[in-house]
Amino acid sequence: MIVLIMKNQILGLLSDFGTKDGYVAAMKGVIYEISSAITIVDISHDIDKQDVRHGAFVLATAAPFFPDETVFVCVVDPGVGTIRKGIVVEGKEHLYVGPDNGILMLAAEHEGIQHVYEITNRKYMRHEISATFHGRDIFAPVAAYLATGTCPEEIGKEIFDYIVLSWTKVEIKNKKISGGVLHVDGFGNIITNITLDDLKQEGIEFGDVLNVQIKEQVNKIAFYETYGKTQPGEFLGLIGSTGFFELAINQSNAAHKLDVSTGDIITISRNMLSP
Amino acid sequence: MIVLIMKNQILGLLSDFGTKDGYVAAMKGVIYEISSAITIVDISHDIDKQDVRHGAFVLATAAPFFPDETVFVCVVDPGVGTIRKGIVVEGKEHLYVGPDNGILMLAAEHEGIQHVYEITNRKYMRHEISATFHGRDIFAPVAAYLATGTCPEEIGKEIFDYIVLSWTKVEIKNKKISGGVLHVDGFGNIITNITLDDLKQEGIEFGDVLNVQIKEQVNKIAFYETYGKTQPGEFLGLIGSTGFFELAINQSNAAHKLDVSTGDIITISRNMLSP
Amino acid sequence: MIVLIMKNQILGLLSDFGTKDGYVAAMKGVIYEISSAITIVDISHDIDKQDVRHGAFVLATAAPFFPDETVFVCVVDPGVGTIRKGIVVEGKEHLYVGPDNGILMLAAEHEGIQHVYEITNRKYMRHEISATFHGRDIFAPVAAYLATGTCPEEIGKEIFDYIVLSWTKVEIKNKKISGGVLHVDGFGNIITNITLDDLKQEGIEFGDVLNVQIKEQVNKIAFYETYGKTQPGEFLGLIGSTGFFELAINQSNAAHKLDVSTGDIITISRNMLSP
Repeated sequence: MIVLIMKNQILGLLSDFGTKDGYVAAMKGVIYEISSAITIVDISHDIDKQDVRHGAFVLATAAPFFPDETVFVCVVDPGVGTIRKGIVVEGKEHLYVGPDNGILMLAAEHEGIQHVYEITNRKYMRHEISATFHGRDIFAPVAAYLATGTCPEEIGKEIFDYIVLSWTKVEIKNKKISGGVLHVDGFGNIITNITLDDLKQEGIEFGDVLNVQIKEQVNKIAFYETYGKTQPGEFLGLIGSTGFFELAINQSNAAHKLDVSTGDIITISRNMLSP
Repeated sequence: MIVLIMKNQILGLLSDFGTKDGYVAAMKGVIYEISSAITIVDISHDIDKQDVRHGAFVLATAAPFFPDETVFVCVVDPGVGTIRKGIVVEGKEHLYVGPDNGILMLAAEHEGIQHVYEITNRKYMRHEISATFHGRDIFAPVAAYLATGTCPEEIGKEIFDYIVLSWTKVEIKNKKISGGVLHVDGFGNIITNITLDDLKQEGIEFGDVLNVQIKEQVNKIAFYETYGKTQPGEFLGLIGSTGFFELAINQSNAAHKLDVSTGDIITISRNMLSP
Repeated sequence: MIVLIMKNQILGLLSDFGTKDGYVAAMKGVIYEISSAITIVDISHDIDKQDVRHGAFVLATAAPFFPDETVFVCVVDPGVGTIRKGIVVEGKEHLYVGPDNGILMLAAEHEGIQHVYEITNRKYMRHEISATFHGRDIFAPVAAYLATGTCPEEIGKEIFDYIVLSWTKVEIKNKKISGGVLHVDGFGNIITNITLDDLKQEGIEFGDVLNVQIKEQVNKIAFYETYGKTQPGEFLGLIGSTGFFELAINQSNAAHKLDVSTGDIITISRNMLSP
């Protein structure tokens, strides 16, 4: 008896192209032309236009859950047509392909960067290369060749001066923890870069009331394990599914209510009212 | 000669996660990690946030057309983090996985519910389970294991006290048929729960003029087989592709014009002007 | 040793159904019911409602990049329920399935039309055919049968009186080139039907300044190879990834700034200031 275990090669696509144009489909066509056996997965195509940080965050929340050897192509590329490089990043588990503007690096650093290669080998690009759509003409074919077994070293020479985005650092002083808003998600949840460890360091525990300052405004918000401790419409702080401290409203939109957006600074301390 | 017939296992995904975050992709990663040979199909991720009825309706309009043994995972889950159960529903043709809030039941009842199981077996969940994202940590892996051959009984014990949504019932008296608006679709078509049989019972036939009352307003609208009987911009009633009575405007948006939304009551009677 | 080369049959889907309903998924269910081994690719489902030209343009920008024998189903169908025909177009490389309203023809003419068949053979349709959703009941199953090897001639008889959309023609006189706006993309780039050859004919070269007239307004805009020659916020003309002359703003939205939409006339001439 022959038992056939199918193992499909997964290729994830992320872009700011939206869904009203043929750009994403053109990239998929190029990939299938190289191998129709690749399984293409849309990570998101609704990244805010040219917003490299938005793309980097979404990629970093999804990539860790994918099988080893998944190849991700990410095209948020305000620098297309300038001298910015195209790169392949070899992480411990996955491969990442895209422009050298930092979009790949939040996810790649999370798992550990092994090597970064500049894309230079014309053999793995389309014949004609447009000035404006490297996603279709360079990144998609490079990713498809990687997915079908081409070694990253084949794509170009290793480089060490790649770009990494800087993010607001978490600082703790005078019993105040301050961090940055990494992302506001579609539910209006405000995701910061503050971790449970940061909170524990200041003695903050589930059930405590927090003073949460954003811009000039201070709100008293309780810190709970889960939405189930609150009523619909009630604010809470919690550790979200990305492992970071989030502000949310049960069944409503916290970012609208607090007028918060990505990049804002948030400062937290334990309120005296805490049990 | 060896002829190889590929039969891929289909897994349908529905959520209110939208497409600007990494949540849907994280679920897909979890599924592919279990088996990269599963074919994942997006049913919709643009269900109105927390709107269980919207999700239930969209699932019910799509599921009947899928092959037997398709597994559907549906995550519209305002109760995540409360004591609401997670369930697997075994219908006559398909399997459904999601929260026990009724979202699965419109589709499942349509084909016939065989068994409902509470999801309790940790073996089929992710190791770490977040308080806020059971779609990724429980429902996605359970569905992937079901798609690769795990029996539903393995997931947990059978239950009988699952939640079913109640929908406005169609009532017929004094020659008036009243029902509810199940859904307003993207074209602005107003889909009710009134069927052709209900209309026939009151002697209504294609070509008739109907008095259609919504809130305080009564409109005279002709009942036709198809858009082809009207001019662009003209109202009509028809039996839509879901088998229900719909109000529409040829090439325009009826819901905007009549200011109707899901849950509104609609009352129909045959107008004396009918031929 | 047995080496197994998988070659999946690709089927592209384009519609104006949006992503909040179950319509697209119902079509996918019908396709998988016929063969679960087909790889379905979403081209776009966010075509402007009933906008056949939008659909035709998006299809034409994506189709050329897909493997030979890819089958495309395109459902932007304001005429559903009238006497408009359903057709299969056999191009030199791909097959196209949809309503006979011109949506398929921009892509098909580009590669060369071999034959056009009217869809009449009930054997390849669903049993029950709704009056309003031929995408699900006729086009999806026809496409799935074509993808699994059915010959186009099986679907119905060849016809020659199919519909082709007319597009604004490029005209050159008195050193002015006038054309039409084919499409405004999600970035706000204004894509015209003027080609590099048209520009060359009037002696226009990269680096020149152009007088660009839209409606009553004339703007001076430089013509460059690529965004890299401009600063963020600066206008430019360039040859875009579709091979046509585009107006754009580096990292911003040109269509909003110039208040341009599809179908507008654009007139270009070489400005005296050009180097």
